[in-house]
Amino acid sequence: MDSPNTTPTAEDETQLVSRRIQRLSLHLTPIPNSFIRDHHQLQLLTCARVKLSVNTALLSDFMRGKHRGIQEKVYEYFKSRPDLQTPVEISKDEHRELCMRQLLGLVREAGVRPFRYIVEDPSKYFAIAEAAGSVDMSLGIKLGVQYSLWGGSVLNLGTKKHKDKYYDVIDNLEYPGCFAMTELHHGSNVQGLQTVATFDPITDEFIINTPNDGAIKWWIGNAAVHGKFATVFARLLLPTHDIKGVSDMGVHAFIVPIRDLKTHQTLPGVEIHDCGHKVGLNGVDNGALRFRSVRIPRDNLLNRFGDVSRDGKYTSSLPSINKRFAATLGELVGGRVGLAYSSVSVLKISITIAIRYSLLRQQFGPPKQPEISILDYQSHQHKLMPMLASTYAFHFASLHLVQMYSEMKKSHDDQLVGDVHSLSAGLKAYVTSYTAKSLSTCREACGGHGYAAVNRFGSLRNDHDIFQTFEGDNTVLLQQVAADLLKQYREKFQGGTLAVTWNYLRESMNTYLSQPNPVTVRWEGEEHLRDPKFQLDAFRYRTSRLLQSVAVRLRKHSKTLGSFGAWNRCLNHLLTLAESHIESVILAKFIEAVQSCPEETRATLKLVCDLYALDRIWNDIGTYRIVDYVAPNKAKAIHKLTEYLSFQVRNVAGELVDAFNLPDHVTRAPIAMQSEAYSQYTQHVGF
Amino acid sequence: MDSPNTTPTAEDETQLVSRRIQRLSLHLTPIPNSFIRDHHQLQLLTCARVKLSVNTALLSDFMRGKHRGIQEKVYEYFKSRPDLQTPVEISKDEHRELCMRQLLGLVREAGVRPFRYIVEDPSKYFAIAEAAGSVDMSLGIKLGVQYSLWGGSVLNLGTKKHKDKYYDVIDNLEYPGCFAMTELHHGSNVQGLQTVATFDPITDEFIINTPNDGAIKWWIGNAAVHGKFATVFARLLLPTHDIKGVSDMGVHAFIVPIRDLKTHQTLPGVEIHDCGHKVGLNGVDNGALRFRSVRIPRDNLLNRFGDVSRDGKYTSSLPSINKRFAATLGELVGGRVGLAYSSVSVLKISITIAIRYSLLRQQFGPPKQPEISILDYQSHQHKLMPMLASTYAFHFASLHLVQMYSEMKKSHDDQLVGDVHSLSAGLKAYVTSYTAKSLSTCREACGGHGYAAVNRFGSLRNDHDIFQTFEGDNTVLLQQVAADLLKQYREKFQGGTLAVTWNYLRESMNTYLSQPNPVTVRWEGEEHLRDPKFQLDAFRYRTSRLLQSVAVRLRKHSKTLGSFGAWNRCLNHLLTLAESHIESVILAKFIEAVQSCPEETRATLKLVCDLYALDRIWNDIGTYRIVDYVAPNKAKAIHKLTEYLSFQVRNVAGELVDAFNLPDHVTRAPIAMQSEAYSQYTQHVGF
Repeated sequence: MDSPNTTPTAEDETQLVSRRIQRLSLHLTPIPNSFIRDHHQLQLLTCARVKLSVNTALLSDFMRGKHRGIQEKVYEYFKSRPDLQTPVEISKDEHRELCMRQLLGLVREAGVRPFRYIVEDPSKYFAIAEAAGSVDMSLGIKLGVQYSLWGGSVLNLGTKKHKDKYYDVIDNLEYPGCFAMTELHHGSNVQGLQTVATFDPITDEFIINTPNDGAIKWWIGNAAVHGKFATVFARLLLPTHDIKGVSDMGVHAFIVPIRDLKTHQTLPGVEIHDCGHKVGLNGVDNGALRFRSVRIPRDNLLNRFGDVSRDGKYTSSLPSINKRFAATLGELVGGRVGLAYSSVSVLKISITIAIRYSLLRQQFGPPKQPEISILDYQSHQHKLMPMLASTYAFHFASLHLVQMYSEMKKSHDDQLVGDVHSLSAGLKAYVTSYTAKSLSTCREACGGHGYAAVNRFGSLRNDHDIFQTFEGDNTVLLQQVAADLLKQYREKFQGGTLAVTWNYLRESMNTYLSQPNPVTVRWEGEEHLRDPKFQLDAFRYRTSRLLQSVAVRLRKHSKTLGSFGAWNRCLNHLLTLAESHIESVILAKFIEAVQSCPEETRATLKLVCDLYALDRIWNDIGTYRIVDYVAPNKAKAIHKLTEYLSFQVRNVAGELVDAFNLPDHVTRAPIAMQSEAYSQYTQHVGF
Repeated sequence: MDSPNTTPTAEDETQLVSRRIQRLSLHLTPIPNSFIRDHHQLQLLTCARVKLSVNTALLSDFMRGKHRGIQEKVYEYFKSRPDLQTPVEISKDEHRELCMRQLLGLVREAGVRPFRYIVEDPSKYFAIAEAAGSVDMSLGIKLGVQYSLWGGSVLNLGTKKHKDKYYDVIDNLEYPGCFAMTELHHGSNVQGLQTVATFDPITDEFIINTPNDGAIKWWIGNAAVHGKFATVFARLLLPTHDIKGVSDMGVHAFIVPIRDLKTHQTLPGVEIHDCGHKVGLNGVDNGALRFRSVRIPRDNLLNRFGDVSRDGKYTSSLPSINKRFAATLGELVGGRVGLAYSSVSVLKISITIAIRYSLLRQQFGPPKQPEISILDYQSHQHKLMPMLASTYAFHFASLHLVQMYSEMKKSHDDQLVGDVHSLSAGLKAYVTSYTAKSLSTCREACGGHGYAAVNRFGSLRNDHDIFQTFEGDNTVLLQQVAADLLKQYREKFQGGTLAVTWNYLRESMNTYLSQPNPVTVRWEGEEHLRDPKFQLDAFRYRTSRLLQSVAVRLRKHSKTLGSFGAWNRCLNHLLTLAESHIESVILAKFIEAVQSCPEETRATLKLVCDLYALDRIWNDIGTYRIVDYVAPNKAKAIHKLTEYLSFQVRNVAGELVDAFNLPDHVTRAPIAMQSEAYSQYTQHVGF
């Protein structure tokens, strides 16, 4: 709610002009503190857009990852093969076949071999997956199922014998495979899976069984059509000589052949049905699998974390079911890293289309003057500029995550493992939720023409939608972040060390425990509001306060409700805590990028970073006001500055999306072509 | 951010038990004020769900509109004709043909004749359109194009000669038609349309021309395949004897034949292309039309608001181009009423599916106990319960709008016309935006199974998406509401009368102008927070404050920026104002419904209404805190009570969706079947 201004003061014209000259000379960067109150007038007085000069090429170089080369190889390959491009309308069955041909072409013809990088250079793998997803998200996911899930489970959960046997045939797609974890009744609760693998010591085999309909493996990618094998997650049952007859060793992974290598017929005991048409990603053939006493050799147990000997004895380097389960799932964290990274890429494509079209599109205008670009409307800037800032913010945060993950794959450092686990969960959840919402906003921002399938928002949204659910439901993942924060919190109080990502909590927790400074809560100058210290402090104060208060509430409620009940009673609070923490990490990484970027790009990135920070603070201004962290006038100043920064970012919005360096054959939407967009659109329709 | 509690007090066990008995006897309704602080403990102590007893049948009777009979006729017809049901996967071309067969079947076989009610009983027309949309949203829209847009333009913009000639053949679908308003370059700015209709006095004809590519009629429903006629909006040009040669009389509507009645060939001078695949609504055949000197008889001008005589003289009962334009567009307001109404219906279907599945689905649970329903998670309640409350709120508000519209169609009362115009714009914008977001939330809430196309969220979202754009872009419509509020505001200060819907502003504007009462800003008892007076006051205070402050800002900025620039400078503020006003109207209508409902349903509706009100206040708590309308502790109390009411509504959520009275053959999603949902789902997949 904006403050009602009192009657406008009648400014002296002469004075205005002299101030105008003074201000023009400043070119807005840097703006002295005292000018912030007048920025609306400044905008007016400078009369035209006060515009930063953006070095797009340099910014693009800085943004571009080190694996841009292989991404361009992917783009170029598909550009050269129009027959492999996914048409706007395609049936499920045709899409599945096309998607397989795309993958085969990429691997066998273009010679892009993602499997080689899964372990040795994950950041290169993610770059390939991202580029493939830009061609068709189904292709990105199909590639991920084959190499990260099926292939990754063999490499990460198996041992040398598995690698020797399967590496080449997974790499060259001779053995397309599945990752059969989820069941009809169990998705998030993986420990509740009911499929069983019973060891038969007589034949030295495991017998895989689906004990009931709820245990049917569901949503299994590659299963409906192409898969020859599946990594099946099942409870390992070992015969015992006691009254129970078997001992449940917990969930393990097994390689199960599902189709004949030559005839492609479904193997005996395996029942496969097609999960059918989905909201999106219809290029991926998801199936449902039921096993009826399917026998596999003992060697098919992926035995890195637990093994069964010829005589049915269980051995493991890890002491408990829970530890083994954690180690098993821990190896799958790469999928989340990849999704966070690819989701940013989807957001880039979407906002590029929305901004290019919004610059082109004109509607209404001042009386008797030409119509203006719709991006000149404040409401449109409000829809798209904080989103553009967030895209930049997520870009740096996801690059950071990929780097951490790559280091972890080399060092296997325990603390890094925990850090990557939590950050990948949090960023995947946060970014995919944000992108999903943004895709809808971008469609709306492009009005009716945004509704033409050829302009891509429909398929981008439908394909991306499930990013919020698979590889860990976002609500569940955020709880893992919250749980990790609470663990760190307890360790802090026990004098232990904090993982790198949470290190800031040590300091801010102390700040938080004191009251907000009554002087700084009133500071409302632009210099202060654009000071990274103020911004980071505000983000971290919020996180620390949420953490401290939820810890107290959990302790209180646990006494009466038990730990599960207490957790549920505080669940909204815990989710807000997790999001707040992730936002703090994102902002910190963005601020680092502003500090480390080439000098010529700094003013631009600083502007974008400030918008990201202040927009987030304004979005949660209620929180800050309830604890009186900011005074009413400071809250209003934050709001005004956010609107003003949106206006400033709008003035370089074209350059900022250009810096993503997405060629027209990647964005593809006719309304977003870099020249002649309207006529490319009418041509598409047949004029 | 929740307040950090101090260390939990150790309650005396004995005391607890005696209080427990006392509380159990209260059964939560009514709850004495003093208990509010302890409600979490109350929840705990009563140990099971404190559950209202809901009279579903009575509630359903109260909710059900008076036209339920004809809706059931629609449902039953399609239930009896499985061959006319839209399959989960269908190509665009097949879908279009199926949709036409559905419409023909409904009209000619089931004998449902929507056109008869367009003028004489609009509420019955909207009920039919809603039911048809529940069968397939494409059908609802195709029906709307034929009867409300094409038929409605003939009835409302034409005169007796048009009605005599076209009524029967529109009614029985012999003449499928189009409504050709939007152009490639102009959607929202209808006054900027460029298609021209030049009168030729020699042949007594109009010549329709598309002067440039930007003026190609775009997105025209029924044009790509089925339409025989189009109501074309074009600038009427009359020959003059001055130097200009022609005089532009502004936008008028003309009946233009586009295809041969017998051969269905496109007529000479008409070029039609297919707009192609869309994000959704692919059962509707949208096309693009270009006219090259297409001649139509003078009689084809829809001449209710302006006419041309044989000798080329223009006559009109209305004095200016602007008045005629407003009258023409004013007749089209019914489309918005229908969209608001149908959008609520989509929301009902979506939340019914999400809630039924969330009650069925179990995941995780306390150690060694059965898994719990996912609707028992606080986070899930947070996602779905305020949405359920909003669905009820929108239901009553949209019924109210339909009633007002029906009265207006009878009385033609000027004040009512203005009121309906503004309220239909606002509710259409507000409700469709809310529903669009909710569809995504419902999909997420249903996890992976929500992603199966058969479970409907994909098609509901894709089809509904454009509701936010067509019949008036939501951002543009909200500005109409804001403009109307400002007009009312000025009239108030000039002592004029206020339209009924804004009447509350008279009072609350006075309240606003004084400071918030320092005592009531601290009241935090449940009785106070659940008092409709507190809730309405809070909503209206916000609206009044936004209105007053934006009026002042506009006046200030107009002096320097001109009215267009000032409006744009305040645009976000104006949109917030419009939304705030619409929320106030929705709440007022809900409160009226609680007062007028059968006694046995009142406690239930009151609970739902309170959740609606408090959730909205909490969502904008920053606003209230910035102006210190609520003290920090009151803000926290509102938050806690919102969570608690969500919990209470969860306990009757099943009954609340049952009261929508949507049979399984309307909801259709296997995961939401009222019995055996999982096995219906596995059967669907082939097990």
